[in-house]
Amino acid sequence: VNVQLLLTPHTLDHVGLEGKTVVVIDVLRSSTTICASLLAGARSVIPVTEPGEAGELRVKLGADASVLAGERKGVKIENFQFGNSPTEFTPETVAGKNVILCTTNGTRVFGLTAGAASVFCGALVNVTEVAEAVAGLQQDVVVVCSGREGGFSIEDTLCGGLLIDRLAVKHRQSVILNDAAALARLLYRERKDSLQEAIAQGEHGLYLESIGLAGDVELCSRVDSIPVVPVLKDGRLVKIDGQ
Amino acid sequence: VNVQLLLTPHTLDHVGLEGKTVVVIDVLRSSTTICASLLAGARSVIPVTEPGEAGELRVKLGADASVLAGERKGVKIENFQFGNSPTEFTPETVAGKNVILCTTNGTRVFGLTAGAASVFCGALVNVTEVAEAVAGLQQDVVVVCSGREGGFSIEDTLCGGLLIDRLAVKHRQSVILNDAAALARLLYRERKDSLQEAIAQGEHGLYLESIGLAGDVELCSRVDSIPVVPVLKDGRLVKIDGQ
Repeated sequence: VNVQLLLTPHTLDHVGLEGKTVVVIDVLRSSTTICASLLAGARSVIPVTEPGEAGELRVKLGADASVLAGERKGVKIENFQFGNSPTEFTPETVAGKNVILCTTNGTRVFGLTAGAASVFCGALVNVTEVAEAVAGLQQDVVVVCSGREGGFSIEDTLCGGLLIDRLAVKHRQSVILNDAAALARLLYRERKDSLQEAIAQGEHGLYLESIGLAGDVELCSRVDSIPVVPVLKDGRLVKIDGQ
Repeated sequence: VNVQLLLTPHTLDHVGLEGKTVVVIDVLRSSTTICASLLAGARSVIPVTEPGEAGELRVKLGADASVLAGERKGVKIENFQFGNSPTEFTPETVAGKNVILCTTNGTRVFGLTAGAASVFCGALVNVTEVAEAVAGLQQDVVVVCSGREGGFSIEDTLCGGLLIDRLAVKHRQSVILNDAAALARLLYRERKDSLQEAIAQGEHGLYLESIGLAGDVELCSRVDSIPVVPVLKDGRLVKIDGQ
Protein backbone atom coordinates (compact mmCIF):
# COMPACT_ATOMS: atom_id res chain seq x y z
CA VAL A 1 0.00 0.00 0.00
CA ASN A 2 0.99 3.61 -0.49
CA VAL A 3 1.46 5.67 2.64
CA GLN A 4 1.57 9.41 2.14
CA LEU A 5 2.27 11.80 5.00
CA LEU A 6 1.54 15.53 4.93
CA LEU A 7 3.64 17.57 7.36
CA THR A 8 0.91 20.23 7.37
CA PRO A 9 -2.67 20.21 6.02
CA HIS A 10 -1.90 22.85 3.35
CA THR A 11 -1.56 20.44 0.47
CA LEU A 12 -4.49 18.24 1.45
CA ASP A 13 -6.61 19.72 -1.35
CA HIS A 14 -4.06 18.47 -3.93
CA VAL A 15 -4.44 14.88 -2.71
CA GLY A 16 -7.25 12.70 -4.07
CA LEU A 17 -8.76 10.96 -1.05
CA GLU A 18 -11.21 8.63 -2.81
CA GLY A 19 -10.84 5.06 -1.58
CA LYS A 20 -8.18 6.03 0.92
CA THR A 21 -7.85 5.86 4.68
CA VAL A 22 -7.04 9.20 6.31
CA VAL A 23 -5.50 9.60 9.76
CA VAL A 24 -5.64 13.09 11.27
CA ILE A 25 -3.00 13.72 13.94
CA ASP A 26 -2.88 16.57 16.46
CA VAL A 27 -0.93 15.20 19.41
CA LEU A 28 -0.94 18.51 21.32
CA ARG A 29 -3.74 18.30 22.13
CA SER A 30 -6.96 17.76 20.20
CA SER A 31 -6.34 14.17 19.08
CA THR A 32 -5.54 13.21 22.66
CA THR A 33 -8.57 15.07 23.98
CA ILE A 34 -10.81 13.24 21.49
CA CYS A 35 -9.46 9.87 22.68
CA ALA A 36 -9.89 10.87 26.33
CA SER A 37 -13.46 12.02 25.73
CA LEU A 38 -14.52 8.77 24.04
CA LEU A 39 -12.78 6.74 26.76
CA ALA A 40 -14.76 8.75 29.33
CA GLY A 41 -17.99 7.70 27.64
CA ALA A 42 -18.82 10.70 25.48
CA ARG A 43 -21.42 9.77 22.84
CA SER A 44 -19.35 11.54 20.19
CA VAL A 45 -16.87 14.34 19.60
CA ILE A 46 -17.92 16.79 16.90
CA PRO A 47 -14.95 18.68 15.45
CA VAL A 48 -15.72 22.24 14.35
CA THR A 49 -13.64 25.09 12.98
CA GLU A 50 -15.08 28.26 14.52
CA PRO A 51 -16.43 29.07 17.99
CA GLY A 52 -19.64 30.52 16.51
CA GLU A 53 -20.30 27.28 14.66
CA ALA A 54 -19.83 25.40 17.94
CA GLY A 55 -22.39 27.55 19.75
CA GLU A 56 -25.00 27.16 17.00
CA LEU A 57 -24.51 23.40 16.97
CA ARG A 58 -25.06 23.22 20.71
CA VAL A 59 -28.35 25.05 20.39
CA LYS A 60 -29.39 22.61 17.68
CA LEU A 61 -28.40 19.50 19.64
CA GLY A 62 -29.79 20.76 22.92
CA ALA A 63 -27.79 22.10 25.85
CA ASP A 64 -28.34 18.93 27.92
CA ALA A 65 -27.02 16.64 25.21
CA SER A 66 -23.80 18.51 24.49
CA VAL A 67 -20.88 20.46 25.91
CA LEU A 68 -18.69 23.13 24.32
CA ALA A 69 -14.93 22.68 24.45
CA GLY A 70 -12.00 24.34 22.75
CA GLU A 71 -9.09 26.73 22.79
CA ARG A 72 -7.41 29.61 21.08
CA LYS A 73 -3.66 30.02 21.70
CA GLY A 74 -3.94 27.10 24.10
CA VAL A 75 -6.42 28.90 26.38
CA LYS A 76 -10.11 27.97 26.90
CA ILE A 77 -12.50 29.92 24.68
CA GLU A 78 -14.61 32.39 26.66
CA ASN A 79 -18.02 31.06 27.68
CA PHE A 80 -17.08 27.51 26.69
CA GLN A 81 -17.39 24.89 29.44
CA PHE A 82 -14.07 23.20 28.75
CA GLY A 83 -10.71 23.97 27.21
CA ASN A 84 -8.65 21.42 25.34
CA SER A 85 -6.94 19.60 28.19
CA PRO A 86 -7.51 15.82 28.08
CA THR A 87 -7.83 15.79 31.87
CA GLU A 88 -11.04 17.82 31.73
CA PHE A 89 -12.95 15.05 29.97
CA THR A 90 -14.06 12.50 32.56
CA PRO A 91 -17.13 10.28 33.00
CA GLU A 92 -18.52 12.96 35.35
CA THR A 93 -18.25 15.73 32.77
CA VAL A 94 -18.99 14.09 29.41
CA ALA A 95 -20.48 10.58 29.73
CA GLY A 96 -23.41 10.23 27.30
CA LYS A 97 -22.87 13.70 25.81
CA ASN A 98 -21.66 15.10 22.51
CA VAL A 99 -18.46 17.09 22.92
CA ILE A 100 -18.41 19.96 20.42
CA LEU A 101 -14.69 20.64 20.06
CA CYS A 102 -13.14 23.71 18.45
CA THR A 103 -9.34 23.94 18.43
CA THR A 104 -6.75 25.98 16.57
CA ASN A 105 -5.02 23.30 14.53
CA GLY A 106 -6.54 19.84 14.70
CA THR A 107 -10.32 19.94 14.55
CA ARG A 108 -10.51 21.99 11.35
CA VAL A 109 -8.61 19.27 9.46
CA PHE A 110 -11.50 16.81 9.75
CA GLY A 111 -13.58 19.21 7.64
CA LEU A 112 -11.07 18.82 4.79
CA THR A 113 -11.37 15.03 4.51
CA ALA A 114 -14.52 14.78 2.38
CA GLY A 115 -14.36 11.89 -0.05
CA ALA A 116 -12.08 9.66 1.99
CA ALA A 117 -13.19 6.06 2.53
CA SER A 118 -12.37 6.18 6.25
CA VAL A 119 -11.14 8.90 8.60
CA PHE A 120 -9.47 8.14 11.94
CA CYS A 121 -8.12 10.32 14.72
CA GLY A 122 -4.54 9.41 15.62
CA ALA A 123 -2.42 10.35 18.62
CA LEU A 124 0.46 8.86 20.53
CA VAL A 125 -1.97 7.59 23.15
CA ASN A 126 -3.75 5.32 20.62
CA VAL A 127 -1.15 4.80 17.90
CA THR A 128 -0.88 1.00 17.98
CA GLU A 129 -4.66 0.55 17.95
CA VAL A 130 -4.99 2.98 15.03
CA ALA A 131 -2.26 1.16 13.10
CA GLU A 132 -4.17 -2.10 13.65
CA ALA A 133 -7.43 -0.59 12.36
CA VAL A 134 -5.76 1.09 9.37
CA ALA A 135 -3.77 -1.99 8.35
CA GLY A 136 -6.93 -4.09 8.47
CA LEU A 137 -8.54 -1.95 5.74
CA GLN A 138 -5.73 -2.61 3.22
CA GLN A 139 -6.28 0.80 1.58
CA ASP A 140 -3.81 3.51 0.63
CA VAL A 141 -3.21 5.77 3.60
CA VAL A 142 -2.90 9.54 3.97
CA VAL A 143 -1.51 10.67 7.32
CA VAL A 144 -2.25 14.35 7.93
CA CYS A 145 -0.20 16.15 10.58
CA SER A 146 -2.21 19.12 11.79
CA GLY A 147 0.94 21.04 12.61
CA ARG A 148 0.97 24.31 14.46
CA GLU A 149 -0.28 27.62 13.10
CA GLY A 150 0.27 26.41 9.56
CA GLY A 151 3.78 25.09 10.15
CA PHE A 152 5.40 21.74 10.86
CA SER A 153 5.12 20.35 14.37
CA ILE A 154 7.62 17.89 15.76
CA GLU A 155 5.12 15.99 17.91
CA ASP A 156 2.71 15.30 15.03
CA THR A 157 5.59 14.27 12.78
CA LEU A 158 6.97 11.92 15.44
CA CYS A 159 3.53 10.39 15.89
CA GLY A 160 3.12 10.00 12.11
CA GLY A 161 6.54 8.36 11.93
CA LEU A 162 5.64 5.93 14.70
CA LEU A 163 2.32 5.10 13.01
CA ILE A 164 4.14 4.43 9.73
CA ASP A 165 6.71 2.28 11.52
CA ARG A 166 3.87 0.19 12.99
CA LEU A 167 2.16 -0.05 9.57
CA ALA A 168 5.37 -1.19 7.91
CA VAL A 169 5.67 -4.00 10.43
CA LYS A 170 2.04 -5.06 9.95
CA HIS A 171 2.36 -4.99 6.17
CA ARG A 172 5.73 -6.76 6.42
CA GLN A 173 7.52 -3.71 4.97
CA SER A 174 5.54 -3.66 1.70
CA VAL A 175 4.61 -0.01 2.07
CA ILE A 176 5.58 2.73 -0.36
CA LEU A 177 6.32 6.01 1.41
CA ASN A 178 6.32 9.56 0.04
CA ASP A 179 9.27 11.81 0.95
CA ALA A 180 7.57 13.29 4.01
CA ALA A 181 6.54 9.84 5.28
CA ALA A 182 10.14 8.64 4.99
CA LEU A 183 11.30 11.77 6.81
CA ALA A 184 8.79 11.25 9.63
CA ARG A 185 9.86 7.63 10.05
CA LEU A 186 13.51 8.70 10.16
CA LEU A 187 12.71 11.31 12.82
CA TYR A 188 10.81 8.77 14.91
CA ARG A 189 13.58 6.20 14.73
CA GLU A 190 16.16 8.79 15.71
CA ARG A 191 14.15 9.99 18.70
CA LYS A 192 12.28 6.88 19.79
CA ASP A 193 14.19 6.44 23.02
CA SER A 194 13.51 10.02 24.05
CA LEU A 195 10.04 10.77 22.64
CA GLN A 196 8.74 12.53 25.74
CA GLU A 197 11.80 14.74 25.96
CA ALA A 198 11.75 15.58 22.22
CA ILE A 199 8.12 16.68 22.52
CA ALA A 200 8.56 18.58 25.77
CA GLN A 201 11.57 20.42 24.30
CA GLY A 202 9.80 21.17 20.99
CA GLU A 203 8.33 24.58 20.19
CA HIS A 204 4.74 23.66 20.99
CA GLY A 205 5.72 21.69 24.09
CA LEU A 206 7.69 24.63 25.44
CA TYR A 207 4.81 27.00 24.66
CA LEU A 208 2.30 24.85 26.55
CA GLU A 209 4.74 24.59 29.48
CA SER A 210 5.01 28.39 29.50
CA ILE A 211 1.23 28.69 30.02
CA GLY A 212 1.22 26.10 32.80
CA LEU A 213 0.28 23.02 30.77
CA ALA A 214 3.40 20.85 31.09
CA GLY A 215 1.22 18.11 32.60
CA ASP A 216 -0.83 17.93 29.39
CA VAL A 217 2.33 17.61 27.29
CA GLU A 218 3.48 14.69 29.43
CA LEU A 219 0.07 13.00 29.28
CA CYS A 220 -0.17 13.44 25.48
CA SER A 221 3.27 11.81 25.04
CA ARG A 222 2.33 8.48 26.68
CA VAL A 223 2.30 5.92 23.87
CA ASP A 224 -0.74 3.59 23.87
CA SER A 225 -2.14 4.89 27.14
CA ILE A 226 -5.69 5.43 25.76
CA PRO A 227 -6.37 2.52 23.39
CA VAL A 228 -9.47 3.98 21.73
CA VAL A 229 -9.89 4.36 17.94
CA PRO A 230 -12.03 7.38 17.00
CA VAL A 231 -13.54 7.14 13.51
CA LEU A 232 -15.47 9.87 11.69
CA LYS A 233 -19.12 9.02 10.91
CA ASP A 234 -21.44 11.72 9.55
CA GLY A 235 -19.19 14.47 10.87
CA ARG A 236 -18.89 12.97 14.36
CA LEU A 237 -16.02 11.07 15.90
CA VAL A 238 -17.18 7.88 17.61
CA LYS A 239 -15.43 4.72 18.82
CA ILE A 240 -14.81 2.22 16.06
CA ASP A 241 -17.25 -0.74 15.96
CA GLY A 242 -16.35 -3.37 18.51
CA GLN A 243 -14.85 -0.99 21.05
CA VAL B 1 22.48 33.26 16.71
CA ASN B 2 19.02 31.86 16.12
CA VAL B 3 18.57 29.80 12.98
CA GLN B 4 15.00 29.17 11.94
CA LEU B 5 14.12 26.95 9.00
CA LEU B 6 10.75 26.90 7.25
CA LEU B 7 9.99 23.65 5.41
CA THR B 8 7.63 25.60 3.13
CA PRO B 9 7.06 29.35 2.63
CA HIS B 10 3.50 29.20 4.07
CA THR B 11 4.37 30.50 7.49
CA LEU B 12 6.79 33.18 6.28
CA ASP B 13 4.25 35.91 7.00
CA HIS B 14 4.22 34.90 10.69
CA VAL B 15 7.99 35.45 10.98
CA GLY B 16 9.35 38.91 11.70
CA LEU B 17 12.26 39.42 9.29
CA GLU B 18 13.56 42.76 10.56
CA GLY B 19 17.30 42.64 11.14
CA LYS B 20 17.53 39.04 9.95
CA THR B 21 19.35 37.28 7.15
CA VAL B 22 17.08 35.26 4.86
CA VAL B 23 18.26 32.42 2.62
CA VAL B 24 15.79 31.28 -0.05
CA ILE B 25 16.39 27.71 -1.26
CA ASP B 26 14.95 26.05 -4.37
CA VAL B 27 17.49 23.39 -5.34
CA LEU B 28 15.37 22.00 -8.20
CA ARG B 29 15.93 24.22 -10.00
CA SER B 30 15.56 27.98 -9.67
CA SER B 31 18.28 28.57 -7.06
CA THR B 32 20.72 26.60 -9.18
CA THR B 33 19.68 28.44 -12.33
CA ILE B 34 20.22 31.79 -10.60
CA CYS B 35 23.76 30.76 -9.62
CA ALA B 36 24.49 29.49 -13.13
CA SER B 37 23.21 32.72 -14.69
CA LEU B 38 25.38 34.94 -12.51
CA LEU B 39 28.40 32.69 -13.09
CA ALA B 40 27.75 33.07 -16.83
CA GLY B 41 27.97 36.84 -16.49
CA ALA B 42 24.31 37.87 -16.33
CA ARG B 43 24.00 41.43 -15.00
CA SER B 44 21.22 40.29 -12.66
CA VAL B 45 18.45 37.78 -12.21
CA ILE B 46 15.05 39.33 -11.50
CA PRO B 47 12.70 36.88 -9.78
CA VAL B 48 9.02 37.32 -10.66
CA THR B 49 5.85 35.46 -9.78
CA GLU B 50 3.70 35.52 -12.91
CA PRO B 51 4.54 35.20 -16.61
CA GLY B 52 2.58 38.39 -17.44
CA GLU B 53 4.68 40.33 -14.95
CA ALA B 54 7.82 38.96 -16.63
CA GLY B 55 6.70 40.13 -20.08
CA GLU B 56 5.84 43.63 -18.87
CA LEU B 57 9.19 43.92 -17.13
CA ARG B 58 11.02 42.96 -20.30
CA VAL B 59 9.25 45.69 -22.23
CA LYS B 60 10.24 48.17 -19.54
CA LEU B 61 13.89 47.10 -19.42
CA GLY B 62 14.24 46.80 -23.19
CA ALA B 63 14.33 43.58 -25.19
CA ASP B 64 18.10 43.86 -25.81
CA ALA B 65 18.93 44.20 -22.14
CA SER B 66 16.92 41.23 -20.89
CA VAL B 67 15.78 37.69 -21.50
CA LEU B 68 12.68 35.83 -20.32
CA ALA B 69 13.09 32.49 -18.58
CA GLY B 70 10.85 30.23 -16.58
CA GLU B 71 8.72 27.13 -16.28
CA ARG B 72 5.34 25.77 -15.33
CA LYS B 73 5.23 22.10 -14.32
CA GLY B 74 8.91 21.93 -15.21
CA VAL B 75 8.34 22.91 -18.85
CA LYS B 76 9.43 26.18 -20.52
CA ILE B 77 6.70 28.85 -20.60
CA GLU B 78 5.37 29.46 -24.11
CA ASN B 79 7.05 32.37 -25.90
CA PHE B 80 9.78 32.59 -23.27
CA GLN B 81 13.35 32.26 -24.55
CA PHE B 82 14.54 29.91 -21.85
CA GLY B 83 13.13 27.37 -19.44
CA ASN B 84 14.58 26.74 -15.99
CA SER B 85 17.47 24.42 -16.81
CA PRO B 86 20.81 25.70 -15.45
CA THR B 87 22.52 24.48 -18.63
CA GLU B 88 20.65 27.04 -20.76
CA PHE B 89 22.37 29.97 -19.06
CA THR B 90 25.81 30.43 -20.61
CA PRO B 91 28.01 33.42 -21.45
CA GLU B 92 26.67 33.19 -25.01
CA THR B 93 23.03 33.47 -23.93
CA VAL B 94 23.02 35.78 -20.91
CA ALA B 95 26.32 37.67 -20.42
CA GLY B 96 25.58 41.32 -19.62
CA LYS B 97 21.80 40.79 -19.60
CA ASN B 98 19.09 40.76 -16.98
CA VAL B 99 17.46 37.35 -16.68
CA ILE B 100 13.78 37.74 -15.82
CA LEU B 101 12.98 34.43 -14.13
CA CYS B 102 9.51 33.10 -13.40
CA THR B 103 9.28 29.65 -11.78
CA THR B 104 6.60 27.68 -9.95
CA ASN B 105 8.09 27.46 -6.48
CA GLY B 106 11.26 29.42 -5.91
CA THR B 107 11.13 32.84 -7.51
CA ARG B 108 7.87 33.90 -5.83
CA VAL B 109 9.45 33.47 -2.39
CA PHE B 110 11.81 36.42 -2.92
CA GLY B 111 8.74 38.64 -3.10
CA LEU B 112 7.82 37.62 0.45
CA THR B 113 11.08 38.74 2.06
CA ALA B 114 10.37 42.47 2.46
CA GLY B 115 11.89 43.86 5.64
CA ALA B 116 14.79 41.41 5.90
CA ALA B 117 18.26 42.88 6.41
CA SER B 118 19.81 40.63 3.75
CA VAL B 119 18.39 38.07 1.33
CA PHE B 120 20.54 35.39 -0.30
CA CYS B 121 19.82 32.66 -2.79
CA GLY B 122 21.01 29.25 -1.58
CA ALA B 123 21.48 25.97 -3.42
CA LEU B 124 23.65 22.91 -3.08
CA VAL B 125 25.97 24.29 -5.75
CA ASN B 126 26.87 27.32 -3.60
CA VAL B 127 26.12 26.19 -0.05
CA THR B 128 29.55 26.66 1.51
CA GLU B 129 29.97 30.14 0.04
CA VAL B 130 26.51 31.13 1.27
CA ALA B 131 27.28 29.79 4.75
CA GLU B 132 30.43 31.92 4.76
CA ALA B 133 28.53 35.07 3.76
CA VAL B 134 25.70 34.44 6.23
CA ALA B 135 28.00 33.66 9.15
CA GLY B 136 29.95 36.86 8.49
CA LEU B 137 26.83 38.97 9.11
CA GLN B 138 26.29 37.60 12.66
CA GLN B 139 22.52 38.09 12.35
CA ASP B 140 19.65 35.73 13.13
CA VAL B 141 18.93 33.57 10.12
CA VAL B 142 15.71 32.42 8.44
CA VAL B 143 16.19 29.61 5.92
CA VAL B 144 13.16 29.32 3.63
CA CYS B 145 12.72 26.09 1.70
CA SER B 146 10.60 26.83 -1.35
CA GLY B 147 9.20 23.30 -1.39
CA ARG B 148 7.09 21.94 -4.16
CA GLU B 149 3.54 22.96 -4.94
CA GLY B 150 3.04 24.10 -1.38
CA GLY B 151 4.49 20.97 0.22
CA PHE B 152 7.77 19.88 1.72
CA SER B 153 10.59 18.98 -0.67
CA ILE B 154 13.40 16.67 0.32
CA GLU B 155 16.08 18.43 -1.77
CA ASP B 156 15.43 21.85 -0.26
CA THR B 157 15.33 20.37 3.24
CA LEU B 158 18.62 18.52 2.66
CA CYS B 159 20.21 21.72 1.39
CA GLY B 160 18.87 23.67 4.40
CA GLY B 161 20.25 20.99 6.70
CA LEU B 162 23.66 21.17 5.07
CA LEU B 163 23.68 24.97 5.28
CA ILE B 164 22.81 24.77 8.98
CA ASP B 165 25.51 22.19 9.54
CA ARG B 166 28.04 24.54 7.95
CA LEU B 167 26.75 27.50 10.02
CA ALA B 168 27.02 25.49 13.24
CA VAL B 169 30.67 24.75 12.49
CA LYS B 170 31.42 28.40 11.68
CA HIS B 171 29.67 29.61 14.83
CA ARG B 172 31.35 26.84 16.85
CA GLN B 173 27.96 25.22 17.58
CA SER B 174 26.50 28.28 19.29
CA VAL B 175 23.39 28.28 17.12
CA ILE B 176 19.84 27.87 18.40
CA LEU B 177 17.69 25.86 15.99
CA ASN B 178 13.91 25.73 15.67
CA ASP B 179 12.28 22.28 15.37
CA ALA B 180 12.32 22.30 11.56
CA ALA B 181 15.98 23.37 11.45
CA ALA B 182 16.90 20.49 13.76
CA LEU B 183 14.90 18.12 11.56
CA ALA B 184 16.63 19.35 8.40
CA ARG B 185 20.05 18.92 9.98
CA LEU B 186 19.13 15.40 11.10
CA LEU B 187 17.96 14.55 7.56
CA TYR B 188 21.18 15.91 6.06
CA ARG B 189 23.40 13.98 8.46
CA GLU B 190 21.50 10.78 7.79
CA ARG B 191 21.75 11.15 4.01
CA LYS B 192 25.03 13.00 3.57
CA ASP B 193 26.85 10.09 1.99
CA SER B 194 24.09 9.60 -0.57
CA LEU B 195 22.82 13.11 -1.27
CA GLN B 196 22.62 12.71 -5.04
CA GLU B 197 20.72 9.45 -4.75
CA ALA B 198 18.33 10.81 -2.11
CA ILE B 199 17.49 13.74 -4.39
CA ALA B 200 17.21 11.70 -7.57
CA GLN B 201 14.88 9.23 -5.79
CA GLY B 202 12.77 11.99 -4.21
CA GLU B 203 9.37 12.97 -5.60
CA HIS B 204 10.58 16.05 -7.46
CA GLY B 205 13.71 14.30 -8.74
CA LEU B 206 11.65 11.43 -10.11
CA TYR B 207 9.21 13.86 -11.72
CA LEU B 208 11.99 15.77 -13.49
CA GLU B 209 13.50 12.48 -14.63
CA SER B 210 10.11 11.51 -16.06
CA ILE B 211 10.08 14.61 -18.27
CA GLY B 212 13.64 14.00 -19.47
CA LEU B 213 15.50 16.26 -17.03
CA ALA B 214 17.57 13.75 -15.04
CA GLY B 215 20.70 15.63 -16.11
CA ASP B 216 19.46 18.79 -14.39
CA VAL B 217 18.80 16.86 -11.18
CA GLU B 218 22.35 15.53 -11.22
CA LEU B 219 23.82 18.97 -11.92
CA CYS B 220 21.74 20.63 -9.17
CA SER B 221 22.99 18.03 -6.65
CA ARG B 222 26.70 18.86 -7.03
CA VAL B 223 27.75 20.50 -3.77
CA ASP B 224 29.87 23.65 -4.17
CA SER B 225 30.17 23.36 -7.95
CA ILE B 226 29.08 27.00 -8.63
CA PRO B 227 30.64 29.12 -5.87
CA VAL B 228 28.61 32.27 -6.49
CA VAL B 229 26.61 34.09 -3.79
CA PRO B 230 23.49 35.80 -5.20
CA VAL B 231 22.17 38.60 -2.99
CA LEU B 232 18.92 40.54 -3.47
CA LYS B 233 19.38 44.28 -4.13
CA ASP B 234 16.37 46.38 -5.13
CA GLY B 235 14.48 43.32 -6.29
CA ARG B 236 17.36 41.94 -8.36
CA LEU B 237 19.72 39.12 -7.56
CA VAL B 238 23.35 40.07 -8.17
CA LYS B 239 26.69 38.63 -7.10
CA ILE B 240 27.71 39.66 -3.60
CA ASP B 241 30.32 42.44 -3.42
CA GLY B 242 33.82 41.14 -4.04
CA GLN B 243 32.79 38.32 -6.35
